[in-house]
Amino acid sequence: MAIKFEVLHECKQTRARVGRLTTPHGVINTPVFMPVGTQATVKAVAPRDLYDMGAEIILSNTYHLYLRPGHDLVQEAGGLHKFMNWNGSVLTDSGGFQVFSLSSLNKISEEGVWFRSHLDGSKHFFSPERAIEVENTLGADIIMAFDECTPYPCEHSYAREAMGRTHRWAARCKQAHKQPETQALFGIIQGSTFADLRQESAKHLVDLDFPGYGIGGLSTGEPKPLMYDMLEVTVPLIPKEKPRYLMGVGSPDCLVEGTIRGVDMFDCVLPTRVARNGTAFTSQGRVVIRNATYARDFSPLDPNCSCYACQNFTRAYLRHLIKTNEILGFHLLSIHNLHYLIHVMQGLRQAIWEDCTLDYVRSVLASYDSEPYNVDGCRP
Amino acid sequence: MAIKFEVLHECKQTRARVGRLTTPHGVINTPVFMPVGTQATVKAVAPRDLYDMGAEIILSNTYHLYLRPGHDLVQEAGGLHKFMNWNGSVLTDSGGFQVFSLSSLNKISEEGVWFRSHLDGSKHFFSPERAIEVENTLGADIIMAFDECTPYPCEHSYAREAMGRTHRWAARCKQAHKQPETQALFGIIQGSTFADLRQESAKHLVDLDFPGYGIGGLSTGEPKPLMYDMLEVTVPLIPKEKPRYLMGVGSPDCLVEGTIRGVDMFDCVLPTRVARNGTAFTSQGRVVIRNATYARDFSPLDPNCSCYACQNFTRAYLRHLIKTNEILGFHLLSIHNLHYLIHVMQGLRQAIWEDCTLDYVRSVLASYDSEPYNVDGCRP
Repeated sequence: MAIKFEVLHECKQTRARVGRLTTPHGVINTPVFMPVGTQATVKAVAPRDLYDMGAEIILSNTYHLYLRPGHDLVQEAGGLHKFMNWNGSVLTDSGGFQVFSLSSLNKISEEGVWFRSHLDGSKHFFSPERAIEVENTLGADIIMAFDECTPYPCEHSYAREAMGRTHRWAARCKQAHKQPETQALFGIIQGSTFADLRQESAKHLVDLDFPGYGIGGLSTGEPKPLMYDMLEVTVPLIPKEKPRYLMGVGSPDCLVEGTIRGVDMFDCVLPTRVARNGTAFTSQGRVVIRNATYARDFSPLDPNCSCYACQNFTRAYLRHLIKTNEILGFHLLSIHNLHYLIHVMQGLRQAIWEDCTLDYVRSVLASYDSEPYNVDGCRP
Repeated sequence: MAIKFEVLHECKQTRARVGRLTTPHGVINTPVFMPVGTQATVKAVAPRDLYDMGAEIILSNTYHLYLRPGHDLVQEAGGLHKFMNWNGSVLTDSGGFQVFSLSSLNKISEEGVWFRSHLDGSKHFFSPERAIEVENTLGADIIMAFDECTPYPCEHSYAREAMGRTHRWAARCKQAHKQPETQALFGIIQGSTFADLRQESAKHLVDLDFPGYGIGGLSTGEPKPLMYDMLEVTVPLIPKEKPRYLMGVGSPDCLVEGTIRGVDMFDCVLPTRVARNGTAFTSQGRVVIRNATYARDFSPLDPNCSCYACQNFTRAYLRHLIKTNEILGFHLLSIHNLHYLIHVMQGLRQAIWEDCTLDYVRSVLASYDSEPYNVDGCRP
C-alpha cells in the first residue's frame, strides 16, 4: 500500500480527529491544509519557504501539468517531486475539475471528455484511463480519480447522471491505476447539494474500497451552511480508518467547520490568490493591506505570527509593496497566509488532542465574524 | 565624516584597485556591484536573499520613494533601512536621472526642475535643496547630488550648459546637506561624451571636495567604447583616496571594463530586469532560459554557481516557471543574476590582490563574446 493512515485521537466534542498519514515521502499530520502548486510551484513561494512554514504535503494539478510542460517532460525530470525539488508529499487532482471549469467546448460522453486547452485552444481527450496514466507519469503520492464535477446550482436529474458517470469512471480509474504500491488512488464522492445523492455516492465509492476519499463538487458557489450540511450527511458514511479530503476548501472558517465535521485534508488556492491581491488572514481577522488605514501602521501584519513576513516587516511596508505591485509583496503575503493556515491546523490538532476543539474553533471563527454553524451536526 | 574609504591594493596591470568603504551600516568591499531597490525593494528578492548572496550595499531611488510612499512616511518608519528592514548600507540617487527620463513636461530653470509624476501627472518641483532635503529624510548612508543628466546623443553646447548647471547645483547641494556626519554626499561628474567637458567637470567637482564622486550621464545609449573612453579621461582626475561610482552600469563586461579603469562602485537594474524576462548571466555566458533548447535540460542554470536557484533547480524547471509566468521564476532568476554579479566582483577583487586582473577580466569577457577594449587605457 502506498499510504498508511492512523487515527490517533478522536475529539469528544465533535467528529474531528487527529491522524497520521504516511506516504512514500513522509508523514503528514492531519487535519492538514495542503498549499496548492498548480503549475508545479506554489505561487510566489519557494520550497524552502514551504519547509519553513511546516508544509508536509502540497497539491498540484494534472490538467495544467499535462498542458505545460507536459507530463512526459516531468517524468523525464524524475517525476514531479524532483522536477520542482519538493521533498515532501504531493497530491495531484485528476484534471476533472479543470476540464469542466477552465477549458471550453468540453464534450462529455461515457468514454470521457473532449476539451480545448484554455491556453491555445488545442483539442484533447481525457478518459479515466488517460487521466490516471498522466497521474501515474507525474508520480504524486496521492492521486485522485477522474470525476465529473457539477457546477452549482445543478438539477437533481443532472447531478444524478453525472454522479453515475463518476461512479463508473471511478471503477475504471481503479482498474487503470498501475502503481498502487507507490501511489494511493482516492475516489471522489459527488452528488452536488443533494443529501440523497451524496449518501448514495459515498456508499457506492466505499464499496469500491479506495484508500481514501475526496469530497468533490462542493465549494463551487453554494452557501457555506449547505456545504456543511452535505459534509454531515456524507462524512459519517466513510469508514473511520480512511482519510477524508474536502476538495477546494481553504478559508479559515471553512477549515475549522470542515474539521469538526470529520474532514482530514483540505486544499485551496485562496491563501495565495488573496495574498497577491493584498489580503491577509491573521489571528485578528482579515487585513486588507491596501487600505489607507495601514499606511502608517508600523506594527507587524499579525503580532501572533512567527513567519518571515511578520517577524521582519511592518504593515506600512507591506502596504507599500502591494500598492506598488512589487513581487516581494506577493511573496511575503503568500508566505504569511500559508503559514497562518498551516498553523491554524496545528492549533486545531492540539485542541483535538486536548478535547477542547470547540473552544479553539470559536476563537478562530471570532476573528472571522462568524459562529460555528449548527454545532449539533458535528457531534460524534 | 559619514564614510571612510581606504585603498587596500592597487593593481599592477590596470587602474583597478581593491578598497574598503566603511559607512554607518558596515563595511563594503570594493569594487562593488550594488543591487537596485527602486521602490525600497530589490525587485523579487527579499533582504534575507541579499544577505545570503553577500550584498553589502543596495541602491534606492529618491524620485520613486518621494512619490510613493512619500519620504515623510519613510522617515516616520525610522528611515529607509528600517522601513525595508535592510541592515546593510544604502545609497540613494537624487532623483535627477528620473526627473529627466521618467517624468513628463519637465521644465528646467537655474532654480530647479518642475516635473509631472509618471504615476498620476501631479506637478512637483525638485531643486538641489529640495532633493537633498528628501535624501536627508530618507537617511541613506550615501546620497547623490541633484544633477542634470543629459540624454545621448547631445550637442556640445547643451552638454556644456547642463554641466555648468550641474556644477552650480552641486555647490548648492553641499550647502543644503544637513547630515554630513551620517550621510556622505557624492558629487556627480557630467559632460556627456565630450572629453573636454568630462575633464572640466571632474576638476570642478574635485575642487568642491566631495567624499566621493559619481560618474553620471553614461550608460545612456552611447557605444560602450565611448563610455570606456570617457572613463579613461575622467577617472585619473579623481583623487585616488576618493571612491568612484559609475552610475547605471551593470552588465558583466561593463563591470570588469569599468573596474580596470579605476571605478569602485556600480549599480544597475539590468540583472533583475533581464531575470524577469528570463535571461540569466552565467559563467558560461548569457542563458535565455525561454529557448526551446533548455526544455529538457536537467542541469543547473550555472554549474559553477552556489546560489539557491543553481543548487536546487534545473534549467528545464526554471524555463517552465518563466514560460508560465510564475513569480517563483522571477524570484529565482533575480537571485541568481545578482549572486552572479556580486561574485564576479568578488573574483575581481581577488584577482586585483593577486595582480592577475587582466586574466580574470579576459575569462569573464570570454563568456560574453568580447575582448577587453583597448587595454592601454586601463594602465595605471
